[in-house]
Amino acid sequence: MSASSINLAVIPGDGIGPEVIAEAVKVLEKAVAAEGVELKQTHYKLGAEHWLATGETLPDEVLADLRTRDAILFGAVGAAPGDTRIPSGIIEREMLLKLRFSLDHYVNLRPSRLYGTVGSPLANPGTIDFIVVREGTEGPYVGNGGSLRTGTPHEVATEVSLNTAHGVERVVRDAFRRASLRERKHVTLVHKHNVLVFAGHLWKRTVEAVAQEFPEVSHDYLHVDAATIFMVTDPSRFDVIVTDNLFGDILTDLAAAITGGIGLAASGNINMDRTAPSMFEPVHGSAPDIAGQGKADPTAAILSAALLLDHLGYTEAARRIEAAVVADVEKRDGTARGTSAVGDAIAAGL
Amino acid sequence: MSASSINLAVIPGDGIGPEVIAEAVKVLEKAVAAEGVELKQTHYKLGAEHWLATGETLPDEVLADLRTRDAILFGAVGAAPGDTRIPSGIIEREMLLKLRFSLDHYVNLRPSRLYGTVGSPLANPGTIDFIVVREGTEGPYVGNGGSLRTGTPHEVATEVSLNTAHGVERVVRDAFRRASLRERKHVTLVHKHNVLVFAGHLWKRTVEAVAQEFPEVSHDYLHVDAATIFMVTDPSRFDVIVTDNLFGDILTDLAAAITGGIGLAASGNINMDRTAPSMFEPVHGSAPDIAGQGKADPTAAILSAALLLDHLGYTEAARRIEAAVVADVEKRDGTARGTSAVGDAIAAGL
Ligand SMILES: CC(C)[C@H](C(=O)O)[C@@H](O)C(=O)O
Ligand SMILES: CC(C)[C@H](C(=O)O)[C@@H](O)C(=O)O
Repeated sequence: MSASSINLAVIPGDGIGPEVIAEAVKVLEKAVAAEGVELKQTHYKLGAEHWLATGETLPDEVLADLRTRDAILFGAVGAAPGDTRIPSGIIEREMLLKLRFSLDHYVNLRPSRLYGTVGSPLANPGTIDFIVVREGTEGPYVGNGGSLRTGTPHEVATEVSLNTAHGVERVVRDAFRRASLRERKHVTLVHKHNVLVFAGHLWKRTVEAVAQEFPEVSHDYLHVDAATIFMVTDPSRFDVIVTDNLFGDILTDLAAAITGGIGLAASGNINMDRTAPSMFEPVHGSAPDIAGQGKADPTAAILSAALLLDHLGYTEAARRIEAAVVADVEKRDGTARGTSAVGDAIAAGL
Repeated sequence: MSASSINLAVIPGDGIGPEVIAEAVKVLEKAVAAEGVELKQTHYKLGAEHWLATGETLPDEVLADLRTRDAILFGAVGAAPGDTRIPSGIIEREMLLKLRFSLDHYVNLRPSRLYGTVGSPLANPGTIDFIVVREGTEGPYVGNGGSLRTGTPHEVATEVSLNTAHGVERVVRDAFRRASLRERKHVTLVHKHNVLVFAGHLWKRTVEAVAQEFPEVSHDYLHVDAATIFMVTDPSRFDVIVTDNLFGDILTDLAAAITGGIGLAASGNINMDRTAPSMFEPVHGSAPDIAGQGKADPTAAILSAALLLDHLGYTEAARRIEAAVVADVEKRDGTARGTSAVGDAIAAGL
């Protein structure tokens, strides 16, 4: 696909969000301009700061407006940990998760790659190059829970994980399709089916069934606890991991850590059916402690912009951004550089 | 506490279970004999092999008999991964988890300590010495789920996490009590309360309330995804982690990995009210691939025996086993030793 313009929604958010997004937009603009494509931006004020000012999380009109865009570039949201003015988790749930669920972002794509050996906390990381395909619209994230006799010694609180054949099958098929395009062509299902029998077996059966459609792709299974062990002892074994929303949340932070930290981890919240715009965001949060100081690393946001271009079909431009990032990262020697210096260097390397 | 005999139940189980348990019993026997205490053992045949032979998982009479013992020493259960004769997870759920739930093992205690720097996959592990107090009788482990239209494109599968004030409070109090006896006196609650709101807030409120009873103990909170990052970037920060059953399962395997592998990780399934015997087991599984070859590392089983003695009040004997293990582990240089050679060396070091 290729068009003469991209109609982009930008949600910078809170904390370091606006700082890293400014660099991602800088790089994005330059990358597509080289192909004669214009980047039309619409900025949206959303997040904790916006909530404090207005009481709004994600109004229906804003959601409707976002639906008219080709894609969303998202920074980070969330207030300072100690800020008691904001009910805990409200921005995450009523804005970030609401976007993922409303726009049916069922593929939460998180690539993990170690560039050089810079920054891995592992003594012998080896070659790390895998992607996690995290389910994004089901599981324990559905908000289906409750509490009875809250605040009394007789309180009972529940959380219900909801899993459907429809939801599991489409994300598993996406994982196999992505694996079929990779060199090693291997899918690892991560779950905990020896304990979470019903959800686990739905996942396992679905993987067995979908695997038939991809005879060239091999697959295996790991319990989530065992997967965390391999993540630190033998991460090279992974090619494509497919897993549920919560296990994916946990594994991708760990994966980010072993590949040099969440300063580098990009992600896409993708609606593969294209019935709504997909959203691309760094895995990191708003990091209020370093906000406004121009020292946040914009690399994860820039890599997220590359995923965005990939999704929109600008594969060439995406590859050029990635190559510029790799070139920059491999030169890093631990010397501190400001946010815009990193953005400039990557833009210059395009 | 001290008595002239310990009435011990031994469940060797499958695979390497019997091999490592033999060494643990050897060390246990010698450690208590030095204090004039007799070790009376009753061995129980349970596990995958037993299921294949009899179709029994954990018969009521066996459970009743186990209740009459002072404590249970448990090896490992589970068939070879590819063995399709055994319905997946049945031994885990109907035997291991059934024991934990029936005997009200609400404190699943898992100490993590790095001895020397032998074997950590981390480049700079630093000093690692924390304990995880994992809840053992609630959460997503309750087996409360189901599936509708199973095997059709309209399947819906659920898993319900059940959490009670009673269940959370007792384990949180245990964690604070253990922290109050440690040098750093710090508790970290790990959960995901920004998403799992109801369960998460029950945990959070309970920690705030119980913390009042322990003014000398400090505490903080981490989302489970962030906790996995710190586990590989700064594990020294942890002193006592308290968390739910599933998060505890995941974090303790990761903790075992960073401290040199599950060959060293011990655990206790503890009923602090002493209304039923507690059970002590290595964190590792039955490892069918190396079973019967006399090469499994019995250290985790031996350390589990030390936790058992601790629980029964034989603190001196427990400390002596631990010291003998530390002395042995710090001498290790990677040369392979057989299971009984390791057991002999530790027994000799008592
Ligand atoms: C902020 C939070 C709701 C979110 C999640 O749990 O999905 C974050 O941790 C992530 O991984 O994107
Ligand atoms: C075997 C399995 C049911 C068990 C668990 O999940 O608790 C194991 O992983 C453990 O950590 O003891």
